[in-house]
Amino acid sequence: MTTPFAACTQPIVFERPLRIRFAHCDPAGIVFFPQYLVMLNGLVEDWCTDGLGVNYSELLTTRRIGLPIVRLDCEFRAISRMGDDVTLGLAVERVGRSSLTLALHCRAGTQERMRSRQVLVTTDLDTHQARALPDDMRAALAQLPQA
Amino acid sequence: MTTPFAACTQPIVFERPLRIRFAHCDPAGIVFFPQYLVMLNGLVEDWCTDGLGVNYSELLTTRRIGLPIVRLDCEFRAISRMGDDVTLGLAVERVGRSSLTLALHCRAGTQERMRSRQVLVTTDLDTHQARALPDDMRAALAQLPQA
Amino acid sequence: MTTPFAACTQPIVFERPLRIRFAHCDPAGIVFFPQYLVMLNGLVEDWCTDGLGVNYSELLTTRRIGLPIVRLDCEFRAISRMGDDVTLGLAVERVGRSSLTLALHCRAGTQERMRSRQVLVTTDLDTHQARALPDDMRAALAQLPQA
Amino acid sequence: MTTPFAACTQPIVFERPLRIRFAHCDPAGIVFFPQYLVMLNGLVEDWCTDGLGVNYSELLTTRRIGLPIVRLDCEFRAISRMGDDVTLGLAVERVGRSSLTLALHCRAGTQERMRSRQVLVTTDLDTHQARALPDDMRAALAQLPQA
Repeated sequence: MTTPFAACTQPIVFERPLRIRFAHCDPAGIVFFPQYLVMLNGLVEDWCTDGLGVNYSELLTTRRIGLPIVRLDCEFRAISRMGDDVTLGLAVERVGRSSLTLALHCRAGTQERMRSRQVLVTTDLDTHQARALPDDMRAALAQLPQA
Repeated sequence: MTTPFAACTQPIVFERPLRIRFAHCDPAGIVFFPQYLVMLNGLVEDWCTDGLGVNYSELLTTRRIGLPIVRLDCEFRAISRMGDDVTLGLAVERVGRSSLTLALHCRAGTQERMRSRQVLVTTDLDTHQARALPDDMRAALAQLPQA
Repeated sequence: MTTPFAACTQPIVFERPLRIRFAHCDPAGIVFFPQYLVMLNGLVEDWCTDGLGVNYSELLTTRRIGLPIVRLDCEFRAISRMGDDVTLGLAVERVGRSSLTLALHCRAGTQERMRSRQVLVTTDLDTHQARALPDDMRAALAQLPQA
Repeated sequence: MTTPFAACTQPIVFERPLRIRFAHCDPAGIVFFPQYLVMLNGLVEDWCTDGLGVNYSELLTTRRIGLPIVRLDCEFRAISRMGDDVTLGLAVERVGRSSLTLALHCRAGTQERMRSRQVLVTTDLDTHQARALPDDMRAALAQLPQA
């Protein structure tokens, strides 16, 4: 059906700790999967602002540049329970003219709980059409370590 | 990076209408992508209960059988805005011993807004280990129309 | 500490059925309370569009009129579980120059699960300042049945 | 209709910083009010675990003691936007036999964005009936500073 999720070959460039909360969990007592995507969306925000130095809120509000997702792949490999202390991590797989391919994961110690590959596109928020990555973002991306 | 999302060749067997709400939308005024996955999770619930005749709540609570996702692929193809009336649809691509592969989408008329392929696994909720599909679910699946 | 939640004396003018879903519920297997507020927000949307005939999406997007909440009181009286079929209802307690006081509840048959009183204010979405209720909304409100 | 929300006279005993995220915000670009309640729920979790030394996850899972809300009052006083750095704070107003009355708020510097009074009850998660506060929680509460 689909190819196996190829392991990311690029280095993790940004990580953040997170505690799994009551609000993330479902009646089975484990993380409800869309909540992982909310968590990873927060990681991308923080990476943009704190890692790349491109303020995410200003990007959307003042500069009217959106960063929607066009392609998402996830593997859920082990459950996470309320109270677990996990780490979210991000690697950059590809930088295109108007898109970014990111590999993200959630791990507890060395155990990978889930991983995701996401293609994000920079858009003009007035037209919702793709536009080139802004120069400051491209410049910051060019300075990241490469595999 | 990833193979193109192959179009589903099985027939849609279950559909439900939905209106896009304020709570689904983000500061860009369009559906926040994890919300699509919450919507589709609700569709799977309704299909299970109303389509297959296997009560989803009883499955989890009384019968202690979970239906977590292990693999998720999505393509986001067009934006949805607050107030849009959309249709969610579901096709069954593959029935395994303990897993189901579903193709799902959200469309407005003939415009596909997003599509997703999901692999769900039936688990024992006390151990979170995979277990065979329950007999009533398997019997109901066997009666679905095939391509 | 607080006064008892006075029973609403105005008639219910709008109701909608809802099924409690997996995504509404928490690790205790019952509705996570902020989800009731998301459900009731959807009820207000539907009442505005379908009850008052004032399209809620257009109100926010084209007309740039917001309807934020400034005051919220809730009593949670009985639990709701996944799979429960409930009814959401709405009464109008007071219409001010730029505000609406609503009484809302969630019931299963005659059992009230929770009730809420909410004060909403119409605002200019560019300044986030209060503004008078728009004329079409005021006219529609004037035609509602009174206690 | 309701009494004014009386200012809390007890000291703040627990605070946590939080950055307002994209996922908290609505199409008006400001925090969607149920998200404040999710944030404050997280604060109560952290206070329980890190402030009182009563592990919240264990409370629910191993000890089967729930902490549902039975009464909620909120005032929303100023908007919060994506990217805002806010502080969540908690005071204990009253300790009953099986209930806690908390005053909580969200502020940015000295500007209070919203405040809430919440009555939580300890319950037996198997019966969902109220039960006495557990001894370790009561002992920890007795050592808090008083006004």
